[in-house]
Amino acid sequence: MKTAILTVGTEILFGQVVNTNAAYLSKNLQDLGYDVMYHYTVGDNPGRLKELLGIVYRDCDLVLTTGGLGPTEDDLTKEVISEFFGEKVVEYPDQLEILKEHFRSSGYSWTENNRKQAWFPENHCTVLPNLHGSAPGFMIDKNDKIIISMPGPPREMTEMFETQVRPILEARREHFIYYRIIRTIGLGESRMETVLLPLIDGQTDPTIATYAKEGECSLRITSERDSLKEAQEACNEMVDKVTELIGEYIYSYDDEDLQSVVGRMLIQGNISISCAESCTGGGFAKALTDIPGISAVFDRGLVTYSYKAKQDELGVSQETLAKYTAESEEVAYEMAEGLSRVSGSDVAVAITGVAGPDDLSPDKPAGLAYIGLTYKGKTSVTEVRIKSRGRKWNREYFILRMFNEVYQAIK
Amino acid sequence: MKTAILTVGTEILFGQVVNTNAAYLSKNLQDLGYDVMYHYTVGDNPGRLKELLGIVYRDCDLVLTTGGLGPTEDDLTKEVISEFFGEKVVEYPDQLEILKEHFRSSGYSWTENNRKQAWFPENHCTVLPNLHGSAPGFMIDKNDKIIISMPGPPREMTEMFETQVRPILEARREHFIYYRIIRTIGLGESRMETVLLPLIDGQTDPTIATYAKEGECSLRITSERDSLKEAQEACNEMVDKVTELIGEYIYSYDDEDLQSVVGRMLIQGNISISCAESCTGGGFAKALTDIPGISAVFDRGLVTYSYKAKQDELGVSQETLAKYTAESEEVAYEMAEGLSRVSGSDVAVAITGVAGPDDLSPDKPAGLAYIGLTYKGKTSVTEVRIKSRGRKWNREYFILRMFNEVYQAIK
Repeated sequence: MKTAILTVGTEILFGQVVNTNAAYLSKNLQDLGYDVMYHYTVGDNPGRLKELLGIVYRDCDLVLTTGGLGPTEDDLTKEVISEFFGEKVVEYPDQLEILKEHFRSSGYSWTENNRKQAWFPENHCTVLPNLHGSAPGFMIDKNDKIIISMPGPPREMTEMFETQVRPILEARREHFIYYRIIRTIGLGESRMETVLLPLIDGQTDPTIATYAKEGECSLRITSERDSLKEAQEACNEMVDKVTELIGEYIYSYDDEDLQSVVGRMLIQGNISISCAESCTGGGFAKALTDIPGISAVFDRGLVTYSYKAKQDELGVSQETLAKYTAESEEVAYEMAEGLSRVSGSDVAVAITGVAGPDDLSPDKPAGLAYIGLTYKGKTSVTEVRIKSRGRKWNREYFILRMFNEVYQAIK
Repeated sequence: MKTAILTVGTEILFGQVVNTNAAYLSKNLQDLGYDVMYHYTVGDNPGRLKELLGIVYRDCDLVLTTGGLGPTEDDLTKEVISEFFGEKVVEYPDQLEILKEHFRSSGYSWTENNRKQAWFPENHCTVLPNLHGSAPGFMIDKNDKIIISMPGPPREMTEMFETQVRPILEARREHFIYYRIIRTIGLGESRMETVLLPLIDGQTDPTIATYAKEGECSLRITSERDSLKEAQEACNEMVDKVTELIGEYIYSYDDEDLQSVVGRMLIQGNISISCAESCTGGGFAKALTDIPGISAVFDRGLVTYSYKAKQDELGVSQETLAKYTAESEEVAYEMAEGLSRVSGSDVAVAITGVAGPDDLSPDKPAGLAYIGLTYKGKTSVTEVRIKSRGRKWNREYFILRMFNEVYQAIK
């Protein structure tokens, strides 16, 4: 079904807010097998909104709108849509009760301008309750045209979409899309394409799309069939074929990121971990502790930024620092060994390097780092050398590589 | 001047990419005094694109487009725009040379399909060089309609906008907007509005808008005048008046964030700092080390997640941990004192608390934390107690509060 997404909101036209609602709806509609043809964003301008509806319905059957459902005079989405569909707006007494109850229970004082949030088109209308706010959404289904209007705040919109709109769209879809995203590490995108060429070539369904993203490479396998079961089977069969060819590089099958995979493996295997960071400045520890429940296995993270901290906390020797400088293989080695000793953790991972933006010296450029890892009594160091893309990017890439080192050790 | 932003790209309709280009352009146009009326996003569909141009120019004089300028068959933006303006597309020999040189110097091999990136409308056209990619942009200025087309990749687009499009728009603007953003901490939004009411009330230019964001409160003072100088003067005068009323809460005048302000103060004052984190898991250290040059003053960050780490690294006593649990005022105090002792830093800041998502117990809910700070030999602890909004949000708020504690101590 051809679909358009219409966003109402001056804050988006002012550039104060990025239109994440449109991206969210697009992705979900696409996954449900709906074709999204257009995004439109307008301010609170009734004339233009109505005109746009006329244009959109020339080749779309379904329109989703967000925004403009609130109590203020500017909020005119509902009135304009009703007029477009030739429906009178009337007060729904049951909705007025729900609304007043919402105000009572939230402790807000009622003002009369809120009453219009209980007005809806008289016929062909389904009200969509709002669990996180005062403005309900609604659907009109009339003359083979469907419109679904939701509030603008993302928390209210996504909840309404997931619980109420998704089931409606699932029931009406004409074909079924199923996809899985496989994530790999250690295999470049062009190399992956070459290896998978026999599967990709001439393949119409399932399709295989590869994409690279900051040091990793993913592939999306998508099937579109008349039933969900068929699409799933086709997709899973292809996943098996892909696994046969590149299984050793795959670390997750359903778009789970490396940090979560590693966190899960550590927690499930009861493998304790500590980290020592210089150039990433705590970023690895932060990423690891983003995972709920990690406290069961994460002992400590030491951000040893100064020479003194490296000596005090990790016992890196002054001679090594003086001879090789902090950004060296030798220091990474001693950091990992020292961390393993002080923490007693099963895995001790350490990093030192040059985050940038500037090079430290010609032979210590931004983008160079050393990752030391001690596991089961053995310490090794990996050199990471990338073309610098700025401090933030470099640091994020280094953190990803630290997760990869831990992953390779414990998998 | 009334303006529309037109985005071409199926990846946006698929929801794979959020349309940050539109937000970026909107904000910049708004700041330059242009009125952004609409955002439109279409796929690679020539018919619809041409039709949209017709609609847009009914009430806009300026259209900015991004995307669809590449070498593939789908990239049709330039062709459609030329046709709309009644211009023939011809090859620009100088552009072909530049393009081929771009391929030579980047080490890419030339393929003939790239040739169309050197084709442009025959008349009324200005080519806009692309410093970060192969596809140039262009401008057509004909019959009081202006269109400016830029490539889709944000890095290419923003560079082209800043260096080439901004000067064009600055030269053509009809009025001038100048604004400053004042950031405050420690003053709620409604309290701020009350205090500033004498300035806000009945004020048409400069306008004062307040907005709250995760524990902070900012205000934007905007003036729109016939000359930039007038707007600046009006704005700065109002900034002085605001400072008289709420100066003690202001920490920056030009939208600089607290983390950068604190980093700058530490570096300029040569004040050394260390941190010890439990619930924020390295997030404070990471935020601090986002600042280039911080290595001059940042000694170490200790992420003491386990009881053992708190004892080993910071000398927190087993009795205190047993009696009060880790998430307590007493432990925060000992963490700060211990950190000050081991690091010898001028500022030692420590945090312990409950990041969530779950409460630890009825009297240790998610959103409760204690920040200990030792500065000039004195240690104090601040309790932070917020309604939990999820692990990620809580942690970010805690980190902001740590920066505030440091700021209050050293300011």
